[in-house]
Amino acid sequence: MDPAKETTDAALVGWLNAAIEEAEKSWAEGGIPIGAVIGAPDGSIVARGHNERVQSGDPTAHAEIACIRHAGRRRDWSRLTLVSTLSPCIMCTGAVVLYRFGRVVVGEHQTFLGAEDLLCDSGIAVDVLEDPRCIALMERLQREKPDLWAEDIGS
Amino acid sequence: MDPAKETTDAALVGWLNAAIEEAEKSWAEGGIPIGAVIGAPDGSIVARGHNERVQSGDPTAHAEIACIRHAGRRRDWSRLTLVSTLSPCIMCTGAVVLYRFGRVVVGEHQTFLGAEDLLCDSGIAVDVLEDPRCIALMERLQREKPDLWAEDIGS
Repeated sequence: MDPAKETTDAALVGWLNAAIEEAEKSWAEGGIPIGAVIGAPDGSIVARGHNERVQSGDPTAHAEIACIRHAGRRRDWSRLTLVSTLSPCIMCTGAVVLYRFGRVVVGEHQTFLGAEDLLCDSGIAVDVLEDPRCIALMERLQREKPDLWAEDIGS
Repeated sequence: MDPAKETTDAALVGWLNAAIEEAEKSWAEGGIPIGAVIGAPDGSIVARGHNERVQSGDPTAHAEIACIRHAGRRRDWSRLTLVSTLSPCIMCTGAVVLYRFGRVVVGEHQTFLGAEDLLCDSGIAVDVLEDPRCIALMERLQREKPDLWAEDIGS
């Protein structure tokens, strides 16, 4: 097996688990259960974040935006991978395209399909995992707090 | 003359002036001279903001994102107008599309053309003013701090 590929797969599992931890943390705080991390080529995590819209009252604080915010000013975005538990909305997609991330890993896009076409059209690699844990997080939100979710996506 | 139109024109001038004030404030702070305001149908200003990337170290803090952040959680976005001194980048455009703003007023798009096509394709009214004050703000930035500007747009 290709060691580089092996390392990448192990890193990917770690990134996804960390993003799910962020989502669960937000839910425990009464917020939207969506989390994100930014991963580096060596497998490390550059930044983490979760949706903070309920917690902070900031309508732009989707998980991906929060995570990019936490990553701070840098110029190496194209070497980084953004991992989100959910398909990124058009705002978060715009941020990813602006900074030309190399890759986006999507936990699931069954419960909400964001702007993945725009990511692909912009030359960004997109992988969708359809992880059952990510799906369960969103299904619970949509079942228990449908209005809060509607507000999150501007509908 | 249609009074409604007259009111709208007067409000628009006030909004643009306020956005320029925000841009100038940011420049005085050592930051990127781009400002934005959100206007309501009655001509009032709902929120103001300017690029805070230098000031706060937050790469998502473009003027439009900062302004939407300051507007807080609300459900009346479609009745509001976002005014920016500069053509909104793909990230800020994504935020505008997510929340389905009714209209975007662009101070100028000579020095940088953002994702206005996406705004139009999303059914959002776009007006470009080509205001000389807005152009002068950006020309000074691009002349005096070209690298800072390049970082702002991910290039």
